[in-house]
This record gives sequence, C-alpha cells and structure tokens, in this order.
Amino acid sequence: MLRRAIRLLAATLLVLPAASAQSVDTAQYLPVARSLLGAGMRTMNAYALLRELVDVAPHRLSGSDGQRKASDLTAMMMTRLGFTGVRQEKVMVPHWVRGKTEEAVVAGPTPYRLNICALGGSVATPGEGITAGVVEVHSFEELRSLGPRAKGNIVFFNRPMDPTRVVTFEAYGGAVDQRSRGAVESARAGGVAALVRSMTLRLDRVPHTGAMGYNDSLPKVPAAAVSSVDADSLSALLSRTPGLKIHMTLDCRTLPDAPSANVLGEITGTEKPDEIVVVSGHLDCWDKGQGANDDGSGCVQAIEALRLLKSAGLQPKRTIRAVMFTNEENGSRGGRDYPVEPARQHEHQVAVLESDRGSFAPRGFTVEGDAAIVQKARRWSPLFALFGAAEFTAGSGGTDISPTIKTGVPGFGLDVENQRYFDYHHSDNDTIETVNPRELELGAIAEALLCYLISEEGL
Amino acid sequence: MLRRAIRLLAATLLVLPAASAQSVDTAQYLPVARSLLGAGMRTMNAYALLRELVDVAPHRLSGSDGQRKASDLTAMMMTRLGFTGVRQEKVMVPHWVRGKTEEAVVAGPTPYRLNICALGGSVATPGEGITAGVVEVHSFEELRSLGPRAKGNIVFFNRPMDPTRVVTFEAYGGAVDQRSRGAVESARAGGVAALVRSMTLRLDRVPHTGAMGYNDSLPKVPAAAVSSVDADSLSALLSRTPGLKIHMTLDCRTLPDAPSANVLGEITGTEKPDEIVVVSGHLDCWDKGQGANDDGSGCVQAIEALRLLKSAGLQPKRTIRAVMFTNEENGSRGGRDYPVEPARQHEHQVAVLESDRGSFAPRGFTVEGDAAIVQKARRWSPLFALFGAAEFTAGSGGTDISPTIKTGVPGFGLDVENQRYFDYHHSDNDTIETVNPRELELGAIAEALLCYLISEEGL
Repeated sequence: MLRRAIRLLAATLLVLPAASAQSVDTAQYLPVARSLLGAGMRTMNAYALLRELVDVAPHRLSGSDGQRKASDLTAMMMTRLGFTGVRQEKVMVPHWVRGKTEEAVVAGPTPYRLNICALGGSVATPGEGITAGVVEVHSFEELRSLGPRAKGNIVFFNRPMDPTRVVTFEAYGGAVDQRSRGAVESARAGGVAALVRSMTLRLDRVPHTGAMGYNDSLPKVPAAAVSSVDADSLSALLSRTPGLKIHMTLDCRTLPDAPSANVLGEITGTEKPDEIVVVSGHLDCWDKGQGANDDGSGCVQAIEALRLLKSAGLQPKRTIRAVMFTNEENGSRGGRDYPVEPARQHEHQVAVLESDRGSFAPRGFTVEGDAAIVQKARRWSPLFALFGAAEFTAGSGGTDISPTIKTGVPGFGLDVENQRYFDYHHSDNDTIETVNPRELELGAIAEALLCYLISEEGL
Repeated sequence: MLRRAIRLLAATLLVLPAASAQSVDTAQYLPVARSLLGAGMRTMNAYALLRELVDVAPHRLSGSDGQRKASDLTAMMMTRLGFTGVRQEKVMVPHWVRGKTEEAVVAGPTPYRLNICALGGSVATPGEGITAGVVEVHSFEELRSLGPRAKGNIVFFNRPMDPTRVVTFEAYGGAVDQRSRGAVESARAGGVAALVRSMTLRLDRVPHTGAMGYNDSLPKVPAAAVSSVDADSLSALLSRTPGLKIHMTLDCRTLPDAPSANVLGEITGTEKPDEIVVVSGHLDCWDKGQGANDDGSGCVQAIEALRLLKSAGLQPKRTIRAVMFTNEENGSRGGRDYPVEPARQHEHQVAVLESDRGSFAPRGFTVEGDAAIVQKARRWSPLFALFGAAEFTAGSGGTDISPTIKTGVPGFGLDVENQRYFDYHHSDNDTIETVNPRELELGAIAEALLCYLISEEGL
C-alpha cells in the first residue's frame, strides 16, 4: 500500500504544482489516512450498521413508527460506540401515509394493470376511484398547447430521464419537474389526476415514488408514479386505442404534523469544542424498499466516520458531530431547523458534510463554498487518492446541509460513482443487497479523513 | 452536457498547464466525443450484445463447444454490423474439462460438505477419492516450516486477499500464488492435494476457479478452490478437531489441445490501412457463471466501439480492429500467437487496447509504454472527462495484449471502478445480472474515442 500511496502522491503532486507549498502539511497526515483505511477495510463496519438499520426499520418515512425506531436505534448505536452528546433534537414533520390500495387499470376487454404507486403527498381518489381518459405529454409546454383537450382526463407525463447525461443527477434534475409539479399542472389544465413516468434510467416494472406538491389556488388531484416499462406500454396502447380509459384508485392521506428529530452524536474537540464539523445523512426514507442507498448509507457512514476516528485513537481539536437529519424526502424540516436550533447559538459550525448519493465507490467531494475553500480542500487531494476519491469539484453539498451552507458555512458532498443510483432510488429496488460493503466503507473512510483534516487545519 | 463539458475541460486544463499547448487539438474532437456518447447511451447496444453472447454461449472455456459457438457468434455479429476483414485466426489451445463430481466432505459424525470446485488444469483424484488429514497454511514459507508434517495430508491454503488494498487487483496479486502454485508446493511438501481459499473479497459460499500449474519434476496432485465461507468454517473446525479428515473427489481431466481462434473484425483505415489500432477482450472464460465480466464485457465493448465509430459516420485514417482473443484464462495462447501470426508481417500495430477488468464504470486507462506515450495520451484527458474516465496512469495494459506490447507497441487497459470485480470473478456469480448497461456502454464509448484519437493523431 505504501508503494502505491507514494506513487499516487507523486502523480497527483505532479499535476498540482500549486499544491507543493502545502505538501508538507499533506504528507504529515498520510499515516492517519492509512490508519483509517486499514481500520475500515478490515472491519467493514458501516455495512454491519446498515444491516442493523434496515432490519430494525426498513421503512422510515417522516412521522412513521419506522422513523421513530430508526432515531432511537441510531442514538443507541452512537451511545454504544462511546460518542458524547448523543441526543435527539425535536423537529415537527409532515405525516403522509400511503394507502392499502394503489391501482391503475387500463380498461378494455383484457384489462391491463399498470404498476403504480402514489407520489408522496398525494391526495386519495374518491373511494370508488377515478375513471377517465388519458392524455400523454412530455412537458408542461406540451400540456398547455393541448388547451381544453386535457380537461377531465388523467394527464400522463412521460418524458424519460435523458440517458445521455453521464451524471445521473443531472438527468434526474431534467425530468423531476413532472413528478414535483405534475399534479399542479394537471389541475391547471383541467385534468383529474397525474400519472408520472418513474424517475429511473432502468426499464423495469418497479414504480419510483417521491415528493410532489400542490398549489392552494388549484384543485388537488391525485398523483402516482408508473413504472418505466408500464409507461412505455401505456404510451404504445394510447397510440393505437382511441378513447382509452384508466380506472385509478389511491387511498393515501395526510395526517397532522408529527414529532420527529435530528439525531446527533459527537467526538468532543480537545481544543475548540464549540467549533463543529458536521458529517451527516438523512434518516428518513420513502416507504418503499429499505432506503439502503437513500439514505441509510449516508447515516451509517457518518456514524462509522466517527467510530473510525475513535478507533484510530485520534483526538480532534474541534468537535466532530454525526447528524442524522430528519425529513429530507418530503419537507427538509430537519435540515431547515438545524441551524436555527437554540443550541446552535453557542456553537460555530466550521463545515458541514453530507453523503446522500448512494452507497457507491467514492470519487471525491463536491465543495459548496467560495473558490478559496475549493483550493484549500484540493491541497488534501493526494491523501484522498489513497481511497480513489481525490476529486474536489465545485458543486452542491446536499439538501439537508443546504440551509446551514446558506448561513456561510462551507459544505461538502460525498461524490460517488452514480450510474446505478436511480435504478434503486425511492423504490422497492433500494435494498441492502445492492450495497457493496467495500464501496460503502470507502465513503465512510473518506468522510472520516476530511472531518479530521478540517478539525485540525481549519478551512 | 455542454455546460458540464466546459466546466470539466476548464477544471482539467487548470491542473494540466502543460497541456494548454495541445488544447486546440483536443477541443476539435469534442463534437466527436459528444456524438459517440449520445449514440452509445441512447442505444445501450453493448448490453444487447452481451445478452446475446451469454445466452448463446454462457460457458466458453478453451476447447469447448461454447467457445466455438462464441467465436462464430462474434464473427457473425461483426459481419452483421458491416465490419470489414471479419475472420478467425486459428490458435491451438489447451482443453481441460471439469468433471461431474466435485466433492469435499469433512468426515465425522455429522459430515460437513464444503463448496468446492476444481482449479483449471487440475488432475482428478483416484475414482474412490482421497481421504486425508488437513494442514492449514497461509504462505509457502509457513508450509516449508512444517517440514514433514504436511506429508500425506491435504494442504489447505487459507490466506485471504488483503481487504485493505483499495485496488482489488493488487489484493488478488498478493494472494493468487496459492491458487497458481498451491498444487506444486503441496506436492513438494509431500501433500496429496491442495485446497485453496477462493480468490474473492466477499464472504459467500461460491467457490472461484482459475488457472493453476504443475511442475513436471513433482507428483501432480489434485487442486480445488473452496468458498470463502467454507474456508473460514474449515479453519474453525480444524482448530477444535484434532485429526480432522476430508474426503475429496474430483474427476476433471485434460484432453489433447484443440483448435480455437482469435476473432477479428475491422473498420479499414482510409489513409493508412496497414497501420492498426487494436481494441480487444478475451472470448474464452471459465465454465462457471457466464463470464459476463470476465471477459464477455471486454469483447462486446470492442465490437461496440467499432459500431459507434461507424454509426457516427467516422472514417478513421488508420484501421481500427476489434479482436476477441482466445485462451486468456488457461494458456494465453491467443495473445501469444497474435503478434507472430503471418498476417502481422504486412501490418504495423500502432497501439493495442484491452478491456479485461469487468463491466464497471470506466475511470480512465492504464498506459503501458514509455513516459512520452503517457504524456501524449494525457493531452486527451479533458475529452474523457466527459465520460468520467479522465485518468491516464502508467500501468499494465492487459494479459492478451502483453506479448504485442513486448514487441514495442504501446498498450492501453480500460481502467474501471473495481471494488466488485472479485465478488464475481471465475465463479457462478459472474452473470449478466451484475452488469449495469450504462457502465458497460461508457467503457465502450471511452474505447471508441481513444481508438479514433490514436487513428487520427498517431502516438
């Protein structure tokens, strides 16, 4: 490993001449980096934590029993590991509940059942369901161009994620308006429901849920995701079946806001205990699959990062805090409340890290802050080359840490190999069997090292 | 995509000041890179080819019917796609056949059946099997230190791959001597068989086969791989069971050498048709799983690379040749014969590329050649950043292209995210369901672009 480390260091420094002035800084942390790497890869403990999390609480949607179990479990994990300041900071969260019935059947002599699931936040259909025609569109513009023809119909939004986008998050960003605003635009056009092609780059029969919203000045119509295979089938059926009708039934509902919490645990800083480096994920997830990648991974990596630092016998100057945020999926209340929680008044947040892009092999970090922060972080890049994670690029930190970043705190998002992420995202596919223990652990190790470097060196 | 491309270009050029003189060269190929990317990601054709290959010929060990079917199929694929010069260059290959019986049972009141498989090239046990005691060792040195205690026993080599090696190929390199030379060292110590812990970083019950050799001056003893879980169980049993015996039966055998072939297909160069850029994989694979990652992927990526260039309407100056090598797994005869085949006398090999590290997301290329070649290739790095594959590092090209590289031809190995590779390698786990169509296609696109750049610009 040493030979490789030296080769990587040499190679990286070769192309980073500006970093040479800091190379002494960087080199002194090489033993720490190697120690964290060895301790992580020998134990693969992040995977064991994830196994425990998804076994105890596979479904962790805000306000659910599963979420409460997950909060208690992760607090217990951190206590068990000897973290300090383990606590739950109360956050009130939306409480939406999926119904028992989620059906969409193409009527006809041989009815065809589409695989659908309600979008998070959707209202129910009337008890007897909705029977209506279908108009297929690929954009809100196309929907508007239909004029009154959408009236009384189910609006079927069927624009796929762009497969030519190599960064799958960009492909998601280019399609997700259909999910988040489809019900609003359907209602605006006089539609009676929205049926949205699942946000995935894979062709399969699994529907992918996710957040959606309403506009209080428009009728609230029910909205569901349909699997990519069924979206293609429905499109083909529509093209050859004039007057095709769908019977759709959903019995989901929204309950009053419920108590939830951000869960915190720490290694207290030896010199500047009130200066905080946060490493985080979000503990809530959709009620499909097990939220193993979104974002069980990020939570267990945060806990594992602190465990690795403790097991290496490191005593950071600043406090390093693991945070399991609540309610990322349908409200972001945990992230919103964190920086304004009264306890924050006595603290200085030095940096916030989040892992919320799945359990895959790390490639580096996106950095959200001014250019000097990016440059400063890049000094450390040769150390991260040990883990194959040397890329520090300007980019978004993460949803939960965004409100804190907006207060002027630099943010870092663990960047990972992302081709498979939307195969699983928000669906029954997101289970622990898709997680590779080594890839998951490497992310935790990279986070541990970055937290430690920031703790010791500042930003 | 353009915005990202520009950002990546800018970022890469920023850290590669030496490349600025060549940035004009590089920029002119950006439309080609984007065209290949679009054509590949929209069709995902490499996956369709792989599906066809593993359906027609899941087992393709040298000398087998499956291998012949695979040669004919890939020749047919290339003819179907309009490649020129499609042909099979004859190569004689070893012909080893796994038997119907592969058993190793720990004797005792409640017999425990270990999951094993013969190593490729092993002799059979006597028909009634071998019953013998077991000595566990972790190195050849430890075996030698046992002196006569190994005599008459089965030698159990149980040193795991080092989990702390981030580059899994290095972990493999540090353990595979047990598989390749275990039978020889067992025989040298007076042992009656070799049982080798599977070369994998995963704990499961699937044995991983692979090549092994004999020394003609020593007895040939049978050799088998045992799954990692069973290796741990056997080790635990040994520690508490004095005199433990195993009954082991294998009925594999080696037949006379058989005819096989390297399969070739081309896009003929418009200006320098006798100057050849090779892009390759190996078509043979072990008789376990489907060889989807090792190395069906590399073969279909080579075909897909040429298809992409044709579909983009590109007419390369030099000839670009796809080669499916034969017999990488147990003899490397295809790679050995390629540079000395009479047809090569009228050709100049400009560069040889190989993909043989699995179907995973590409990160760049290893470059085997003098330092000037590495520097020259790095000029193009910003283009490959489009595919997340911008890393050009000095390193081995690949087993099949190694004999050609030794004649002075620069070699390039597709480098990929490799954490999962040995989970599947040489075992029943290596099936198409482990392959992500996008990751596979990105590798083919990166290869297509590199072939084209070398064709147009030389090296």
